[in-house]
Amino acid sequence: MRANRGFYDAFEALDIERMRAVWLDAPYVKCIHPGSDVLLGAERVLASWKAIFENTASIAFEIADVRVELAGSSAWVSCEERIRATKDDNAPPSITAATNLFVLDRARWKLVLHHASPIHRRFT
Amino acid sequence: MRANRGFYDAFEALDIERMRAVWLDAPYVKCIHPGSDVLLGAERVLASWKAIFENTASIAFEIADVRVELAGSSAWVSCEERIRATKDDNAPPSITAATNLFVLDRARWKLVLHHASPIHRRFT
Repeated sequence: MRANRGFYDAFEALDIERMRAVWLDAPYVKCIHPGSDVLLGAERVLASWKAIFENTASIAFEIADVRVELAGSSAWVSCEERIRATKDDNAPPSITAATNLFVLDRARWKLVLHHASPIHRRFT
Repeated sequence: MRANRGFYDAFEALDIERMRAVWLDAPYVKCIHPGSDVLLGAERVLASWKAIFENTASIAFEIADVRVELAGSSAWVSCEERIRATKDDNAPPSITAATNLFVLDRARWKLVLHHASPIHRRFT
């Protein structure tokens, strides 16, 4: 799904204006960073990304197990984020499980919820 | 939202049949337990709840900061789960952030995604 890829592209680019364009500009959008509580509203969510980008020198994502579901004007993506400092970093990646929920807004899919959580173990 | 309350009621009751009734019986439903990866499909998801219930003597939820958004036949809830062994347990609760996504199925809201993650810190 292109909108989901756009989110990770903006994150990799550490580009706050591209990240702003990914999100719906609405007071009800929500973002849950790994280990954190819910941030509510586009303003707070974008401020968090700005803080993250300002404190990140470089980041590279490999996105795996992408599953997209569609119901009317909503779509949600589940995926695994494999995160390294750079694309050719040989260290084991940090792995998170992500839920990204999009709504259709004037014919464009806009992110309204991002929930990412560290994967510490495989559920058997 | 009653369907969201029904999920936590089934969890507190440790009742697998009530939990089964909460979920849509579909191969695309997903569950992310705290610290774990994505479980895909009603069968695997229900098996995980069965394992949890069999290994839990008692559990009590206080659900806070509930926010419900609706878009057509989809609805999603963000909330904070404050979890104790019993309702009158005085120990500090475990706190998780939860995203619960429901779709309308024959006039009933059915859970299609539960994503819960530990809150280790408040994002400032």
